[in-house]
Amino acid sequence: MCELLGMSANVPTDICFSFSGLIKRGGKTGSHKDGWGIAFYEGKGYRSFHDPVASADSEVAKFIQHYSIKSTQVICHIRKANRGRVCLENTHPFSRELWGDVWCFAHNGQLKGIKKKALKGYKPIGTTDSEYAFCWILSQLREEFPMKPKSHVTIRNAMERLCKEVAKHGVFNVLISNVGHLYTFCSTKLTWLTRQAPFVEAQLLDADLCVDFKKETTNTDVVTVIATEPLTSNEQWTKMRVGEFSVFRLGAKEFTSFS
Amino acid sequence: MCELLGMSANVPTDICFSFSGLIKRGGKTGSHKDGWGIAFYEGKGYRSFHDPVASADSEVAKFIQHYSIKSTQVICHIRKANRGRVCLENTHPFSRELWGDVWCFAHNGQLKGIKKKALKGYKPIGTTDSEYAFCWILSQLREEFPMKPKSHVTIRNAMERLCKEVAKHGVFNVLISNVGHLYTFCSTKLTWLTRQAPFVEAQLLDADLCVDFKKETTNTDVVTVIATEPLTSNEQWTKMRVGEFSVFRLGAKEFTSFS
Repeated sequence: MCELLGMSANVPTDICFSFSGLIKRGGKTGSHKDGWGIAFYEGKGYRSFHDPVASADSEVAKFIQHYSIKSTQVICHIRKANRGRVCLENTHPFSRELWGDVWCFAHNGQLKGIKKKALKGYKPIGTTDSEYAFCWILSQLREEFPMKPKSHVTIRNAMERLCKEVAKHGVFNVLISNVGHLYTFCSTKLTWLTRQAPFVEAQLLDADLCVDFKKETTNTDVVTVIATEPLTSNEQWTKMRVGEFSVFRLGAKEFTSFS
Repeated sequence: MCELLGMSANVPTDICFSFSGLIKRGGKTGSHKDGWGIAFYEGKGYRSFHDPVASADSEVAKFIQHYSIKSTQVICHIRKANRGRVCLENTHPFSRELWGDVWCFAHNGQLKGIKKKALKGYKPIGTTDSEYAFCWILSQLREEFPMKPKSHVTIRNAMERLCKEVAKHGVFNVLISNVGHLYTFCSTKLTWLTRQAPFVEAQLLDADLCVDFKKETTNTDVVTVIATEPLTSNEQWTKMRVGEFSVFRLGAKEFTSFS
């Protein structure tokens, strides 16, 4: 299974600390050695870094760990291949444009029979069931809404329904992001915490690294981190429930429903 | 105006040498300081690096300069903003998926009235006329060919027609790539050279750097480099003609036509 990491923040924030812990699981403290990727939103802009080698050995990962990209939304994935060979085009997160926004997708789990669903307007580049599911979700959104709906609630309701539909095919722990929102669905495991004042020191589980967030933040910062497993040993992580669909925006949880 | 660099090769080849020369033009030997980007094809896979700062000062550019990514097709762009503000979403090369392949686009020039053309299925994320033109080309391709045409010649003929149509709107020096082919259109300036055995030493124009390609290559390597201006001082660059549409594949020129 793969590892996921997401961040939603109300100010551009760097993810170096959490990323330093996660990448150790790619071949060092974990067995997820089949590539990794990370995507950053900066305003309407989007950039991603992918490497089909183990994150613990990746030169690109070493660079990202020390190069502070400040972003309000981040999605990161380290891969243990189940379906689809190890190669660049099978490396999450995947991205596509819809309604003039970049959408980004990273998935943990396996999906049976997903490739029987019809696609329209989006086609996978690689061979994973994950990218296929992403293309199906976007196909459905564009089919139902050729123009971007004015209300975010309309998009959220559609996304909730589509996530639940995909989850019928197997394990679907997922982070999906557009410019403003980070959508999550928990099939078996996702956990999260929000950091805000008063900030404390945090200790990584996977690396001998502490950070004192008091020194790194201002009193109004709100940052939520979402991961398949807790990344720190001395903070309170909240496990998502099976079937939970939650939406984060500007660092805070905006919506939750359970199926 | 911006600077373009493209590479087509018959074996995965690194572009560190040419890139080292080009990035100097982003704020050091040239005035193109409004961001830069580079895209690599690796098999069906694609990854790109973008930075909205001057390439001469960019930490990401320094990393790419020394990190050898071997690719058969590369497109690179350094920007001097004319239309569209300096930000990540306006930084070339742009990319989109069509027929399950990643298409990539970088442009030098300005296009008047291009935004009056209707788009279908692709929308720009940023505000440049360049990205709009790219979205229009892909809209037209998908409209005409909902499925990928079996013959490459069909795609090439369509691409030639679409480039000529866009060029009516202004200056359109462009590099467009999919997994197999690198399409170029020269409105005012593009130049190219093919390196193959017997390989010689090359000297960069913009940096005090030589490379002896004999030591870096095998006898069967064929590598074509395309740029807005020659990058080396001691090699024979061929200027493209005004209105020239040329296609490169596996390091060699496969097709040329003139309007």
